[in-house]
Parts: sequence; C-alpha cells; structure tokens
Amino acid sequence: MAELVTVAVDANGADLGPAEVARGAALAAANGTRVLLFGPAAEMEEADGVEIVDAPVSIAKASEPAKAARSQPEASIVQAARSVAEGRAGALVSGGSTGAALAAGLFEIKRARGVHRPALTLTIPVPGRPVLLIDVGANTEARPEHLVQFAYMGAAFAQGVLGIDAPRVGLLSNGEEATRGSAVVIDAHERLTGATGLEFVGNVEGTTLVEGVADVVVTDGFTGNVAVKLMEGTTTALLNAIREAATSSSRGKAGGLLLRPALSELRDAFDVDEVGNAYLLGLRSLGIICHGRLTQRGFQRAIEVAERGVRERVVDRTYDALSAAGALRAVSEPAATVTPDQ
Amino acid sequence: MAELVTVAVDANGADLGPAEVARGAALAAANGTRVLLFGPAAEMEEADGVEIVDAPVSIAKASEPAKAARSQPEASIVQAARSVAEGRAGALVSGGSTGAALAAGLFEIKRARGVHRPALTLTIPVPGRPVLLIDVGANTEARPEHLVQFAYMGAAFAQGVLGIDAPRVGLLSNGEEATRGSAVVIDAHERLTGATGLEFVGNVEGTTLVEGVADVVVTDGFTGNVAVKLMEGTTTALLNAIREAATSSSRGKAGGLLLRPALSELRDAFDVDEVGNAYLLGLRSLGIICHGRLTQRGFQRAIEVAERGVRERVVDRTYDALSAAGALRAVSEPAATVTPDQ
Repeated sequence: MAELVTVAVDANGADLGPAEVARGAALAAANGTRVLLFGPAAEMEEADGVEIVDAPVSIAKASEPAKAARSQPEASIVQAARSVAEGRAGALVSGGSTGAALAAGLFEIKRARGVHRPALTLTIPVPGRPVLLIDVGANTEARPEHLVQFAYMGAAFAQGVLGIDAPRVGLLSNGEEATRGSAVVIDAHERLTGATGLEFVGNVEGTTLVEGVADVVVTDGFTGNVAVKLMEGTTTALLNAIREAATSSSRGKAGGLLLRPALSELRDAFDVDEVGNAYLLGLRSLGIICHGRLTQRGFQRAIEVAERGVRERVVDRTYDALSAAGALRAVSEPAATVTPDQ
Repeated sequence: MAELVTVAVDANGADLGPAEVARGAALAAANGTRVLLFGPAAEMEEADGVEIVDAPVSIAKASEPAKAARSQPEASIVQAARSVAEGRAGALVSGGSTGAALAAGLFEIKRARGVHRPALTLTIPVPGRPVLLIDVGANTEARPEHLVQFAYMGAAFAQGVLGIDAPRVGLLSNGEEATRGSAVVIDAHERLTGATGLEFVGNVEGTTLVEGVADVVVTDGFTGNVAVKLMEGTTTALLNAIREAATSSSRGKAGGLLLRPALSELRDAFDVDEVGNAYLLGLRSLGIICHGRLTQRGFQRAIEVAERGVRERVVDRTYDALSAAGALRAVSEPAATVTPDQ
C-alpha cells in the first residue's frame, strides 16, 4: 500500500473562517490524505487524519506580507510552510492571502534547484478543458529564460496534476506571428521553438486563449495578473448585466426562471470551488493558494490536488524536464533576490 | 456659419466592401460633413458632399503593412493619409486594416509636435459610460514618458470628442498601490501623481477597469492589445455559452425568447458599430481605424466622430495640455524610429 501523503494547510484567511477550512480538511482526510492543519485550535473541529497545530496568529490581512512573513515566524502560514521545508508535509495549501503565502513559501520552502523564479499559475475556465496561465503575479518582470522555465513548470503541472498527456504550450502575445511581442516575448518565442520535450504551439492571443488553443499559456506576472483580473471583471460585469435583464420586467423574470437550469451548468464553470485556486510552482515543494471564497468542498479539493501533486512528483518532473532541455539555472549564476510583491 | 470639415475616408478593407463605406459616407455628408472618399470608384455610389477619388489598390490585407505602405504610394489608405497631410482633409478614417492605417498615418501624417509616440485607443463597453484604453497596440514597449503622454492624449480626446468634462485617468497595473507594477509603470505612476491638468486616479486593475473607475486607462501597447483581445474573447465565449444554454432544450428556448428584449439592450452595448473603432492619437491629425465589420451606420458614425475631433481641435488641445504640463518631447531629443508593428 502506498504511503499516505501529508499536506500542510493554513486555515487562516479564508472568508468563511478556519472552521470551514477544517471541515474541508476532514473531508480530504476521510479520502486518505493526512492533513497538518495550522490555525486557531479553538475554532476548528478535530477529525481523523487531521493533526491540528494551534497557530492563532494570522498575517493574511497584512498590508506588507513579505515583511510580516519575516517578522512573525509564529504566523500560521509561516509555520505551515516551515513544516513543508522540514519534510513534515509534502505540499502547502493556504486558505489565506496570496501575498502572505507567496512570501512564506519563498522564505521557508525556497526555490527548487535550477529554477530562476517561482511562478503563480491559475486555471482559466475555458469550455472543454481549463487553460493554465503562468505567471499570474509572482514576478512583475520576466526575462526570456524565466518564461522558458515557466513553460516547463506549467507543462509538468498540467501533465502530473491535471492529467493532460502532452500539454500544448503557448506564449501570450499581441499577435500570432513569431515576430510579434515585446523584445522579451520575441526572444522567448525563439528559445521555445523546438525546445526539447515541449509541445510549443507558438504565440497565443487573448481571443484564441479563451478558445483553448493551448493547455498552458506563458506570460510575465504583470501581464498575467492584469489578464486574469480583466477576465474576472468582464465575466462578472456580463453576468450581472444578464441578471439585471432577467429581473427588469415580469417577462424577463419568466425567461430567467425558464433558463435557470441551463445556465446553472454555465455557472458551475465559474464556480470558485472548482477554478479559484492558484498554484505556486518552482519551489522545492508544491504550493496551492486557495481563493478566499472557497467552501469546505473547495478546500477539500485543493488538499486533494496538492496530494496528487506530491504523488505525481511534479517538482521532480519539472527538474527532469528542465535538465533534459538544458534550461536549468546554472549553479554559478548569482541567486536573484526574491521579493514577493503581492 | 462654421466652415464644413472635410474627412478623408479609405473605403478599402471593410468586410462589407467599399459600397457599404460609400453609403456611410453619404449618410455623414447628408448631416453636413464633407467626405473625400478613396477606393474603387466603380464600386461606390456618388452622393452629395462626397468626392470620390478612384484608388482601387488596397493594402488592407498586406502581410507586412509597413512595407506595403512605403512601396505602394497609390494604395487608397496612403492616398487618403496624404490628403490629410496636405491639408485637403482634416482627419483620416480607415475602413481597413489597423496595420496599414497605422503605417500610412505614421509615414504620411506624421507625429504631432512634441509627441514621442502615437498611440491607438479603443473604447471599452462598460455599463454607464465607455472607458478609453490607450495604447492598444501601436507600441509594444513604452517608456514612462510615453505613458505620461498617452494620459494627456487620451484625456484630450475624451474631453473633446466624448464630451467628458474632467476625464479621470488611471494607469493599468497589477495592483492599486503606487508601488505595484513593472518598473516602467511605477515610474509613470510617480510622474502622473499630481501632474498638471490631469485628473489622475491612480492604478486601475482589470476588475475595477470594467467597473468604470476611470474614463481613460493608460497602458503599453503590448498589455493593452492582450487586454482588449482577452475581453473580446471572454465576452464572445460567455455569450456563446448563454446562447447554447438558451437553445439546448425547449424550456431553455422559451426562456431565451422571453429574455430577448431585455438582452437586446445588452447586445447594443457590444454593438461593433458603436464601439468597434480605434482612434489613432498623437499624429498631426486625428485618425480613426474602423472595425472591419462595421455597417454603413458605423462608418457614418466614425466619420462624424472624426469631424467632431477636428472641430473640437483635439490635436491642439493635446499639445496645449502637454505644453502646460511640461511633458512635451524636447526638440533636441532624437526622433525615435517609428515602426508600426501591427
């Protein structure tokens, strides 16, 4: 029988509170994942397979998360990350803020061997199968060699965790031709063309991204962050406008009622429990940063995804792929100062 | 009585053909705008107030528009731009490709005095009032001083043509704090804070952009281009999914029928005739690049918007604002090589 995987979970920062995270942990534990749960013990119910570590201090709302993560080693997210760094757990799940989790992950778990920069990735709800956008905010600037590594990091995750056999990797740009884009993007395109062990499909534009022409789409953290927020904003505005149309008159109301079952399927595609998580790739262990609005079902799922990431050896896969492609960061290269800015 | 304004129009490149552009020109002329219409005379009907110049050569589909604009001076878009440069018309309207119009505009009409880089801007359909995004693709890279000029160019256009009194100007970034963004964005934010004659509201994220927190949103052409295509893609995908939901069952169909009148208002907000045009700002005269899918009503409107831009002296307003703010390009500064890449 395979050994059980342990996932470290920070219960602070979730909109529904630590109790909801604890309920999600209990569900995941019932399915066979061990959970090391950091948060206010008084607020969380015990469950089989869940080990609660009392860590009431939260930095999820800190205005300067990097500073907070350094100065408050007792904070729940820092303790959770440390448990991963020390091998007591195989992956990190955070129910709290992106900034705090990013900082704690970088400081405690640290970059994986050969990786220039960790990156945040998010699955975008595209009809059919989701698209992984990497980076969505860990690095506001990226050099071509960073983008190349993001491609391998995203592909290894898509393969290991999402179960996509030969993930098609695209590069986000303002045109499909190889000559389109910023100097960094054009350089990255050249390096990715014919890169070993990668199914590079070329540049992807905003319009085709949404059509799912690639499984993994690479970009810098500035563009990626603007992109996901724009998609979120556009979707919300449009759905609000439709809701308004369906309540503005009795005729509209009747139409809205009749349409409801058909539209509920659509709503599921944007369900935060399904698509609300960000994955922190490029550390020595996998990190998952949950959307603040998740319910217990979402936390359960996040913990189980983390478990799959450990079982499928996503970090080792990434190293192997980078190594085979000759895309590892040279040991002689000075380590970049990693300052999470989100 | 005020003198009539003449607008130069390129009829090539529209999806519905030159005849449709000519019909739009006739409608605008009937409302009091003189039109100098370049295109295949054989395909266009004459009308009062419209002077047709036979120019059958089209470079709207050229794969390298900049090269085509240089090597084919007889092309309709080049002739139309030249008529503006020579003062025979006050503004340029193109029914064709963005690349060809951008190239012809830059080569013939040339940059306005004191302007670093022309920029393309697009109005984004936001409930309430539209948001002007600048730049959406004329420059894939932008320096801080370019972004500052884009702010004044966009504000002058919003004021003069869209009739927004004191346009609120925002800077697209990956966070609202002044310290968030790429080095260029952070620098631009500093320069824009307290800039003379500008209502700077700070950084704008994708989510708040769609809520209309600013009337003009400044970004580089790479990010702006990715952004508008993402919004277009997301909107299309979502509306398609809803249409599918409303036709997947008889119950859904009935609901869709009842909802139709309420939704038609929403559709209007995305009507390409209303929001499909890009404005080329920063040249010695205003340029409008129409969406290929416009109908005659859309072309009429574009010509009338160009007329308003001339009447409201948008180019002079921009110069005055840049001058008052000390943000003009110094004459001693070497002129940047302008190479339109779209």
